[in-house]
Amino acid sequence: MMIIKIGGGEDINLKGIIADLAGHKQPFIIVHGANAIRDELARKLGVQKRVLTSVSGYSSVYSSREILDLIMMAYAGLRNKRIIEMCQQKGINAVGLSGLDGQLIQGERNRGIRVREGKKVRIVRDYSGKPRSVNIGLLRLLIENGYTPVLCIPIIDEQQTAVNTENDDIVAVLQKELRADTIIQLIEARGFLKDAADPDSLVKKISSAELARYEEQVSGRMKRKILALQKLFEGGSVKVYLSDGRREHPIKAALQVEGTLIL
Amino acid sequence: MMIIKIGGGEDINLKGIIADLAGHKQPFIIVHGANAIRDELARKLGVQKRVLTSVSGYSSVYSSREILDLIMMAYAGLRNKRIIEMCQQKGINAVGLSGLDGQLIQGERNRGIRVREGKKVRIVRDYSGKPRSVNIGLLRLLIENGYTPVLCIPIIDEQQTAVNTENDDIVAVLQKELRADTIIQLIEARGFLKDAADPDSLVKKISSAELARYEEQVSGRMKRKILALQKLFEGGSVKVYLSDGRREHPIKAALQVEGTLIL
Repeated sequence: MMIIKIGGGEDINLKGIIADLAGHKQPFIIVHGANAIRDELARKLGVQKRVLTSVSGYSSVYSSREILDLIMMAYAGLRNKRIIEMCQQKGINAVGLSGLDGQLIQGERNRGIRVREGKKVRIVRDYSGKPRSVNIGLLRLLIENGYTPVLCIPIIDEQQTAVNTENDDIVAVLQKELRADTIIQLIEARGFLKDAADPDSLVKKISSAELARYEEQVSGRMKRKILALQKLFEGGSVKVYLSDGRREHPIKAALQVEGTLIL
Repeated sequence: MMIIKIGGGEDINLKGIIADLAGHKQPFIIVHGANAIRDELARKLGVQKRVLTSVSGYSSVYSSREILDLIMMAYAGLRNKRIIEMCQQKGINAVGLSGLDGQLIQGERNRGIRVREGKKVRIVRDYSGKPRSVNIGLLRLLIENGYTPVLCIPIIDEQQTAVNTENDDIVAVLQKELRADTIIQLIEARGFLKDAADPDSLVKKISSAELARYEEQVSGRMKRKILALQKLFEGGSVKVYLSDGRREHPIKAALQVEGTLIL
C-alpha cells in the first residue's frame, strides 16, 4: 500500500503525477491539497483571512464556517473532481471523498485558543481539529473492489461537524491504520532543504532518527513538517519520499530519489 | 428502495428533509441540485451565462469548462458536503459522490447544436450530455454496507470528461437500473400545478397515462419536466411524489400526498 500526498500549490504538475500513477500495480490512496485554489477563491469572493495570535505567541488562521465553505468548494469540489476526471482519463477508477463522507476521517475539534482582547483574555474556538482515526472499513471496501480513494479535507469531528485540519496529520493517521510501506509527498520544492532559501541544500537521504536533529535546526512550517514526518515512523517501518511535484514525472523522480528519501 | 431528488433552489428546507429521512428504514439514494449556489457563485466570480439559440429555435445554456468548474464547486463541493454533514449529524451515514467518482453516472456527450453566426451555420459543442447508465455495483456496494449515496453532477462522458446534465435525467436512469418503488421530488412549488402561476391549481393525483395529456397543455421547463416524469414509468411500476421542499417536514408531507402523487 502506498500513500501519495499531493500539495495544493499552483505549480504542482497534477497531470504528470496521474500519468505516472496509471498502470501502478500496487493499490494506493491519494490525499490532496488545494490551497492555491482556496486562496484565489477567497480573494475573488472577498473572504478575509483572520489570523489569531494566542497569549503564548502562537499564530493560526481562524477557520470560520465561511472558510469551511471555501474549503468544500476548493478541495472537495473543484480540485478533487478535476483529479478524479484526470484519473478516470488515465484508467484509474478513482473515487473522491472528503473526511465527512462515511465518516472517513474522524477528528477532534480544537478546544480553542486563548486570545488577548484589550485587557481581557478569551477563548476563541474555530472549525479546526486534529484527525484521530479513519474509517478503515470503507477504505478497504473501495480498494478491494478496485477503486482508488482520493481524499481531502474537511474531516468530521465528535459532533459530526465539518472541520479543517492539516494534510500532514491526515497522512500520519492513515499510515498508522493502513501500515503503508511507501509514502510519497509531492511539494513545490526539490525535497528536504537544509536551507529553505537554497535549492542546492537538498538532503538526499535522512534516517528517521536524524529527523530529531533537523527539528532543532529549523523553525516555523518546516518544524511542523518534520514533526509530522516523525509521526509517520511511529507506526513502524516506512519509506517516505519528499519530492518535487512540479517536474514532468513527479512520481518516477520521487521513487528514483531525485528528492529526499527518509527511512 | 427510494430515490429522493432535492431541488437546488435557495428556499429548499434541507434540514427538514434530512430530519424526516433520519430513522427511515428502507434504503434510499439522494440526488441533489445546487443551482442557487451555482448562480450566486457565477455572479460573484463574474462568470457570464452564455445562452445559445439553435437554428431550430431551441435555447440552451452553454456549459463551458468554466461553468463545469462552478458546478464542481457548487454541487460536488459546497452543497454536497453540507448535505453530508447534516446527514451525519442525524445519524445517516452518507457518502457524497459526483457522477465522475467510480464512473458512477456514465453519459453521452451532446453532439453540439447548430448555431447561426451571420450567414454561416456552425456547430457549437459544450460540456453537456445525457446520462445513459450507472455503476450499479458501486451503489450496491455502498448501500449493502450501510451507506447512503448522495449524488450530484457532473457526470462522466464516453471520453471520461466531466459533463453537465439534468437531474431529472439522472433520476430516470437510476430508476431504470435500481427499480425503486418510490421517488420523491422536492421542488419550490406545492406540486404539479395546472397553471404554474396559480398555487391553487395543484393536481393531487395523476396517473402516468394522464401525463401525456398534460404534456400537450404545457410548455418550456414544465414540458421537459413531464417528459422526464414519463420516463420514470418506462421501467415499470413506481410511485412518484412531486412535493414542496420548502415546508417544515417535506418528506412527511410528500408521503401524505400534500403535493402531487403520480402513479
